[in-house]
Amino acid sequence: MPSVNSYDVTTWPVGDAAEDIGEVINSIIADIKARQTATDEHHGGKPGAVIHIPPGDYHLRTQVVIDVSFLRIEGSGHGFTSSSIRFNVPEDEWPDLHELWPGGSRVVVDLPIAGEVDESTGAAFFIERSGSPRISSVEFANFCIDGMRFDGDGSELHPANTYVNGKTGIYVGSSNDSFRITGMGFVFLEHALTIYNADALSVHDNFIAECGSCIELRGWGQASKITDNLIGAGFKGHSIYAEHHGGLLVTANNVFPRGASSVHLNGVTRSSITGNRLHSFYPGMVVLAANSSENLVATNHFLRDQEPWTPFLGVGNGLDDLFGLLRIDGSNNSVIGNHFSEVVDAETIRPAGATPVIIRLVAGGGNYISSNHVVAMDVRTTSSDSCFSAQVDALLTTEASDSLAVTAVEVDSDSARNTILDSGTEAEVVVDRAANAFRATPAIAAG
Amino acid sequence: MPSVNSYDVTTWPVGDAAEDIGEVINSIIADIKARQTATDEHHGGKPGAVIHIPPGDYHLRTQVVIDVSFLRIEGSGHGFTSSSIRFNVPEDEWPDLHELWPGGSRVVVDLPIAGEVDESTGAAFFIERSGSPRISSVEFANFCIDGMRFDGDGSELHPANTYVNGKTGIYVGSSNDSFRITGMGFVFLEHALTIYNADALSVHDNFIAECGSCIELRGWGQASKITDNLIGAGFKGHSIYAEHHGGLLVTANNVFPRGASSVHLNGVTRSSITGNRLHSFYPGMVVLAANSSENLVATNHFLRDQEPWTPFLGVGNGLDDLFGLLRIDGSNNSVIGNHFSEVVDAETIRPAGATPVIIRLVAGGGNYISSNHVVAMDVRTTSSDSCFSAQVDALLTTEASDSLAVTAVEVDSDSARNTILDSGTEAEVVVDRAANAFRATPAIAAG
Amino acid sequence: MPSVNSYDVTTWPVGDAAEDIGEVINSIIADIKARQTATDEHHGGKPGAVIHIPPGDYHLRTQVVIDVSFLRIEGSGHGFTSSSIRFNVPEDEWPDLHELWPGGSRVVVDLPIAGEVDESTGAAFFIERSGSPRISSVEFANFCIDGMRFDGDGSELHPANTYVNGKTGIYVGSSNDSFRITGMGFVFLEHALTIYNADALSVHDNFIAECGSCIELRGWGQASKITDNLIGAGFKGHSIYAEHHGGLLVTANNVFPRGASSVHLNGVTRSSITGNRLHSFYPGMVVLAANSSENLVATNHFLRDQEPWTPFLGVGNGLDDLFGLLRIDGSNNSVIGNHFSEVVDAETIRPAGATPVIIRLVAGGGNYISSNHVVAMDVRTTSSDSCFSAQVDALLTTEASDSLAVTAVEVDSDSARNTILDSGTEAEVVVDRAANAFRATPAIAAG
Repeated sequence: MPSVNSYDVTTWPVGDAAEDIGEVINSIIADIKARQTATDEHHGGKPGAVIHIPPGDYHLRTQVVIDVSFLRIEGSGHGFTSSSIRFNVPEDEWPDLHELWPGGSRVVVDLPIAGEVDESTGAAFFIERSGSPRISSVEFANFCIDGMRFDGDGSELHPANTYVNGKTGIYVGSSNDSFRITGMGFVFLEHALTIYNADALSVHDNFIAECGSCIELRGWGQASKITDNLIGAGFKGHSIYAEHHGGLLVTANNVFPRGASSVHLNGVTRSSITGNRLHSFYPGMVVLAANSSENLVATNHFLRDQEPWTPFLGVGNGLDDLFGLLRIDGSNNSVIGNHFSEVVDAETIRPAGATPVIIRLVAGGGNYISSNHVVAMDVRTTSSDSCFSAQVDALLTTEASDSLAVTAVEVDSDSARNTILDSGTEAEVVVDRAANAFRATPAIAAG
Repeated sequence: MPSVNSYDVTTWPVGDAAEDIGEVINSIIADIKARQTATDEHHGGKPGAVIHIPPGDYHLRTQVVIDVSFLRIEGSGHGFTSSSIRFNVPEDEWPDLHELWPGGSRVVVDLPIAGEVDESTGAAFFIERSGSPRISSVEFANFCIDGMRFDGDGSELHPANTYVNGKTGIYVGSSNDSFRITGMGFVFLEHALTIYNADALSVHDNFIAECGSCIELRGWGQASKITDNLIGAGFKGHSIYAEHHGGLLVTANNVFPRGASSVHLNGVTRSSITGNRLHSFYPGMVVLAANSSENLVATNHFLRDQEPWTPFLGVGNGLDDLFGLLRIDGSNNSVIGNHFSEVVDAETIRPAGATPVIIRLVAGGGNYISSNHVVAMDVRTTSSDSCFSAQVDALLTTEASDSLAVTAVEVDSDSARNTILDSGTEAEVVVDRAANAFRATPAIAAG
Repeated sequence: MPSVNSYDVTTWPVGDAAEDIGEVINSIIADIKARQTATDEHHGGKPGAVIHIPPGDYHLRTQVVIDVSFLRIEGSGHGFTSSSIRFNVPEDEWPDLHELWPGGSRVVVDLPIAGEVDESTGAAFFIERSGSPRISSVEFANFCIDGMRFDGDGSELHPANTYVNGKTGIYVGSSNDSFRITGMGFVFLEHALTIYNADALSVHDNFIAECGSCIELRGWGQASKITDNLIGAGFKGHSIYAEHHGGLLVTANNVFPRGASSVHLNGVTRSSITGNRLHSFYPGMVVLAANSSENLVATNHFLRDQEPWTPFLGVGNGLDDLFGLLRIDGSNNSVIGNHFSEVVDAETIRPAGATPVIIRLVAGGGNYISSNHVVAMDVRTTSSDSCFSAQVDALLTTEASDSLAVTAVEVDSDSARNTILDSGTEAEVVVDRAANAFRATPAIAAG
């Protein structure tokens, strides 16, 4: 070991990392705390440490509890593979598979989940500290947290498709500063990453998929960024959720299905959702709820098409096509330069015969909606047993069997003083022109 | 070695990494496969491994063949230096140079390239696996792949300037999931990175320059991202190329000359090219070909100026100035909020006397072109023997000797039902106003 | 040590890294230079090295001088914690604090700063090399550079709040290529990162806060990127500054207060500021000065509100509210799709009773300002002794006590031939309509 502040879970004398990496890491943290006691103003003395997790399978049977700043836990492989696809392969074919499980530096969450479980008790990594200062600069990098299986909830779905198992990857319960989550893989967790009261958090370049919910910023917070991640939640959960945050930057993410929402903001202000690629099988892709105000939603690519994979046919998020792909309850937001593709089979629209709504302003006012482009087509989609090829086939299909009429922008009567420019033709925008400003996208003369 | 799944090429007992790192890595992979045989459902058992490449020069005389998931190959230095500049320094000055070659953790591709070579046989790292599941989570990080020299093709160029040597950095030949290429350096390869059938691939924060082509996504694929890279291909090749992909996110890249194209999409749908800085010496910077549809091209900075470096004077990509800096053969794309600078010597325009075209829609329909700003100027450029200072001088020159008339948008008769807003004045847009919607950028009264 | 080119500061036989890491690293660099002398064309021989800094406190009493390419200095923790908050806690409460100092792999800058000090002599890491080629691929990753304290300048502020100590984190004095600064933490330095003459530089995913100035690109340069950082300078300094650069990409950064500017460009051309979240307590957030031309400023979120933290009440950057949040002295720039929130107490506006200006064009011409949304409100802000909660409270406050009239765009008479579209109503834009093109954002009929 090159330094007293560098640890390796496979060489630490207490516990057995393969059997219970939680016990090992807690023992290491106790060692750090026992050694780093200085409060000397001049020399510091509490630099924290790095804990290495080499590639390997590590069961976690004891929750890791972190209450020291400057702790970095680092692996050498994010190890994602699709457990969802594998669990939907008939068991008699499993022996033919190259591998059955995620890999890399893989922490297998094997906590006793029973009775009353919430996101904190079911968390593999639990972080909380009271007093001052806030806990700072805890870092997670380049390893895999695998919830292993979903247990089901009594629904008719295959248990593996329920996204229910009471397990959380990382849970931060108290105010925190300058945390960093980078290069991680999260798979088959009911909640991947749940963080309360974040300041200057960075969630960057991770792979967070096949989890019930992926990134949840709760409580309140500011000045954080969720950038450049590959993300896809389950049909019940959020891919990206934030509440009562200001100055949040959500950019350059590729968010794929099947989250109930791609980005859901609740009471969030002065934040940005820009330059993301968003793909969903349901309405309600981006939701600005609970008076979310002064946010910028710009240059995102929204694609809403339909579930092509057999095991999830008929599953939805419960919202109908009038809900809006982008729905705003709030004021003074900017929605600029987004592309929306709505590619569905007209027969599946709910309520039946309705005209789907793309951008819907339900309450508030003063929003500025400009230069958005809506494309809609009626396509006969076919489903497949192969998740990947079904999705790619659907993605590459651009031949409509017929045109699909949509409402590009609908402004409810509870929302007023909005400005709607170049985001739909006269026929495509439903707005009270006395209460809002409206300039239609020019129609095509020969159209 | 702290763990059985961590390897170091310099300490592995088989082979000599300096002489043939390919033999060493293949031996390590054989060891991983021999050890990791478990198919036990409960414990996994195939976590893969990490292979470390410390800084140093490593010849690769045997192709590395990867068919295991969860393999991470990691160095400690991307090691780029400009071989292009060095090869254009007279040989008698070489002894005065601080260093002659790239560095860092440097893999020198020294494969026997002879006779029939294609991107796969000339690849330093060859990845392919049949059967299920797809190979997943192979990671390359923080090392350098150096093709060492270009051999020329009999053209009149200095061999070093031909970008021809039959060498590929990384070649992935079969369907793959969740691969990650991060922090790498690629230099003097005919093809840096060629990947077929990618799902959820991340190519992030790399340095890929002085290669024939840089990033090529072939076959088909989905939900990948090419983000935050520094990229610059040769005059014959593509900086970023993708075919038959859906949901691709190309953002935050700084793409410099001299690629034949900056971004070339072939049959690509529902993808994003947003927030990039693109610089080229030729027309055809961004090409949406073969019915590429429903893509978003937004808030990119396009600069097309002229070759300022003496060794490449007279070299081009064969396209004339009517081709368009952005050319679209496809439907329902969005082109919003881009800046275009065309800074050329009017004498060099081809066909002579032509009016250069900035955005050209050649086929398809339903495209939405809004809020783009075109700047054009006629500048007497001067070339220099010094690549860096010539480029900087050119970049910083903003004084036109004269104004340059351009066609901001041209819509061919094969493209219809497009909407063109605020992207050029009446005089700058060529469009059939019966077949398309058009609103001119307002002219300046005193202009 | 696994390789001759991998070093660890804690095991190197010369010096004591805890007492003077500068002496240790200089000794390592001397070793690299003594060993790597080859100039052999075929084998390279100067690959550089990696120097590891494990977590710990390391005083730096000797400046590190780097003149070799391909050197990577790498830690295991960016170690940021707010020293600003801590220094403003009464000293008698310090024993109750969990920790007093930043941590991680922490380099404590303890240079003898006396007499004439400039950014180079006060730099912890000084990089310079003459001759050819330019020094290339020096990398800094994942460690902390801590200036420890500010000494004050005789102002009435608490010394800790002056941002004055003569210390620089990293200073690059000569032309350089392909440098990489990633995952670093910088805190309490008068200048964090000062780089002259950069080509293809990457400053990515760092935490640079509580420094006088954060990122300064000086001299001239090209094709660099400043992406995905968390940044916040002092009230006197720049968060991001660049001069005479072309092709610079500034994107996906979250820039928080209290820099005198968020982004200041001086004579910069053909560059991009896109998709950033920018927050300031003063006017002059983004400044394009000295004929900065052909730049793209798009889809940024600008928030200008007021200092909520007691220790800095009354501190400003000396600019009044007519200066503009975005100010342009230059030509042919594009300002597209930005959101601006101006949230101030009307009583504090200077000059008293003035109408604050959001976008101001002071000189040049040919700028294109389109689809920007300005929100302004008059809010009674309250200050707090708690920095974090005060900022969050302010950020989340969206209830105006009254509306605030602002000038969305003002075009001075020295700037002409600009095009202003959909960026303010008739009443909100001050422009000579003979000399510029103007289309007002449509007013609301019932407004």
